[in-house]
Amino acid sequence: LFNEQIDQFRAEFLELHPYDQAKIFETQSEKVRMQIYSYLSSEEIADVMENIDIDDIEPFFSEMTPPFAANVLAEMSTDDAVDILNELDKNKVASFLTIMDKEAAGEIKELLHYEEKTAGSIMTTEFVVLNANLTIKEAMRHLRKEAPEAETIYYTYVIDNQKRLVGVLSLRDLIIAEGDWLVSEVMSDRVVSVPVGEDQEEIAQMMRDYDFLALPVVDFQNHLLGIITVDDIMDVMEEEASDDYSKLAGISDVDGPDDSAFTSAKKRLPWLIILLFLGMLTASLIGRFEDTLDQVAILAIFIPLIAGMAGNTGTQALAVAVRGIATGEFEKQGKWKMIGREAGTGLITGTCCGVLITLIVYFWQGDIFLGLLVGISIMATLIVATIAGSLIPILMHRLKVDPAVASGPFITTINDIISILIYFGMATAFMNLLLH
Amino acid sequence: LFNEQIDQFRAEFLELHPYDQAKIFETQSEKVRMQIYSYLSSEEIADVMENIDIDDIEPFFSEMTPPFAANVLAEMSTDDAVDILNELDKNKVASFLTIMDKEAAGEIKELLHYEEKTAGSIMTTEFVVLNANLTIKEAMRHLRKEAPEAETIYYTYVIDNQKRLVGVLSLRDLIIAEGDWLVSEVMSDRVVSVPVGEDQEEIAQMMRDYDFLALPVVDFQNHLLGIITVDDIMDVMEEEASDDYSKLAGISDVDGPDDSAFTSAKKRLPWLIILLFLGMLTASLIGRFEDTLDQVAILAIFIPLIAGMAGNTGTQALAVAVRGIATGEFEKQGKWKMIGREAGTGLITGTCCGVLITLIVYFWQGDIFLGLLVGISIMATLIVATIAGSLIPILMHRLKVDPAVASGPFITTINDIISILIYFGMATAFMNLLLH
Repeated sequence: LFNEQIDQFRAEFLELHPYDQAKIFETQSEKVRMQIYSYLSSEEIADVMENIDIDDIEPFFSEMTPPFAANVLAEMSTDDAVDILNELDKNKVASFLTIMDKEAAGEIKELLHYEEKTAGSIMTTEFVVLNANLTIKEAMRHLRKEAPEAETIYYTYVIDNQKRLVGVLSLRDLIIAEGDWLVSEVMSDRVVSVPVGEDQEEIAQMMRDYDFLALPVVDFQNHLLGIITVDDIMDVMEEEASDDYSKLAGISDVDGPDDSAFTSAKKRLPWLIILLFLGMLTASLIGRFEDTLDQVAILAIFIPLIAGMAGNTGTQALAVAVRGIATGEFEKQGKWKMIGREAGTGLITGTCCGVLITLIVYFWQGDIFLGLLVGISIMATLIVATIAGSLIPILMHRLKVDPAVASGPFITTINDIISILIYFGMATAFMNLLLH
Repeated sequence: LFNEQIDQFRAEFLELHPYDQAKIFETQSEKVRMQIYSYLSSEEIADVMENIDIDDIEPFFSEMTPPFAANVLAEMSTDDAVDILNELDKNKVASFLTIMDKEAAGEIKELLHYEEKTAGSIMTTEFVVLNANLTIKEAMRHLRKEAPEAETIYYTYVIDNQKRLVGVLSLRDLIIAEGDWLVSEVMSDRVVSVPVGEDQEEIAQMMRDYDFLALPVVDFQNHLLGIITVDDIMDVMEEEASDDYSKLAGISDVDGPDDSAFTSAKKRLPWLIILLFLGMLTASLIGRFEDTLDQVAILAIFIPLIAGMAGNTGTQALAVAVRGIATGEFEKQGKWKMIGREAGTGLITGTCCGVLITLIVYFWQGDIFLGLLVGISIMATLIVATIAGSLIPILMHRLKVDPAVASGPFITTINDIISILIYFGMATAFMNLLLH
């Protein structure tokens, strides 16, 4: 493709958007990648690396020479460099930080302390601050100087002499303002900020609601620590959405369309095996009703219907509850209102489906008692399963258990068990009516 | 709260961010809202309306007097006004457009033509364009003048004399450049644009990948029609994620935590009733194997296990396929590779679970034939259900059928039926071994 024609390759490659550079880079063989490392500067490679998916990046940093890798990390946005270091093993991180230029290493070390998925872990420290006492003219001069390094210049944050955040100034306000006004006169002092430990999902919600392009991050004394920009928040939104989605599907991570069959199986098997054991529990439960089954074998044909309806309604309730918790609506309304509403929903859907199925079974099998048994079972099942579908995630949330446990297939299997108990329990109790 | 104290109310209310204004506004009674309409100007109400959820907005426009409502719409960003008009009934839209100021009505009418969920429907026409022949100084003057009206000024788009899009200039580049340079010298001519009919999900993907804050929309002759800003894209991302999530849960819309039980039931019942009929299909299928069941009643106890495993693995495969289609990974790889990978995954998970369950059933029931029957059924079921879980959404996508049909519970029920056929088919075929 490009044998030794360094200049031509550089000219063509660097014309592209870094995202496209990254796409091309990723598809090259290791041999070609080695050539690319030697053709481009560490700053140019840093742009490429910032656009590679974080899950795929580890091999590239392993194949670079350590000093080159350290330089690339130093040239990257601090927040992106930290994300990458969080993917590498500890020894490698330490060695990179040792050979790296002192200033960059210092900035990175500071951010490495913050817990994953908090404001601290996604913020960048490359931003522009203005002192409240500057004039607009001085502020513009400062901004022009800082622009090449900063992650965004569209919002600048204003601090007082104690470095506390006191205001925000958009570039829009800045270019409209007269040159001799003071920053403190033009800025908005109603600045919204987030504490450094704030959860990233809350921040995404906030930026979306308020249409912010950037958000300042402060410590408990209101000192400005960093800023979070909208491009990082879009990645967070994607990550959180994909996370909720994976949980509902009962799979550890849906985002691997280029996984091999083996990797996919490894991601799904743990779930399937847990569910297999839960399924055995259902089987042994039905086993206890073997006498009932022996007497009225026809009962068996409605097992999948009843278990399936329980699973479906439980998944619906689960989805609503999980979204309610994620969007904070749940906190606002309180758990009782939410559970009460689900109980009401279960009652309505249960009654409708129950009446319908009673009629269908009656006309199909000509047996009103069988119809009533199936109908009442469906009704009771839908009510209980709907409540369980919302109650279980709320409990998990309450107990601070990882809500991944309350995933779709798990709720489905729990509801299978509940529904079988209701159905066979009632069938056994009213056996004499069924045998007539 | 604020009896006739107009000035104080105005001062306090207008200090707030429009999003907070909207939150307060929404919780007021109709009587108080009527007072608010009279206290604030149509421009101030427009800011509030832009921050109200689109699904909740209809009643507010119905309770305003028509001339006031028309003024509010005229003052809003064109794209937001169009979104609202799409929610109202046609007659009302026509009457608002008639009383509205001509210029605003014209802009809105233009956007109303575009199909929902395309670039045209989410773009705004309030943006700044620069002619390529301006100097930087002239461009800055133009920008300052246009700033109050424009949705964003951080990216300005450059057109030639035929109004064709030729470049993009960020405000960052603009403030760094010298005053007497030409716009055409400073701008980037590698401007990325989207056609007006482009799907909104593709656009969201693109803005996220390229970290754009705005994206120009063009017609087939490359004329600049509008721009899409990142705040609208964040709403699109949320909408699409919530859409995928709802589909997987088999519910028309999970985003209604303040719905009543009745509204919730209305959203869920259609699905439950369809699934009820599909469940009856399963029941009648098992009914055909009544003889088999009568002879070996113990077969019934494994029905929920096998059907459940089929449902779970199908949901996993479905989730991966839907995400693959949504992120475009599927187009890249081609359907055969994806289906082949799913078949491999099904084979691995099927073999593992099959061997495990054979052993468990053998030790539990002491019957190796029953163990083998359940084990081989699980294996065959997992392979078929995994393939079905990925094949069905791909087919839907191919046939341009609304993929909502391929939702989680639907796939689960299809896989229930497949699994029951496999299990009872095998049981009937090898009946003599089971009876020994």
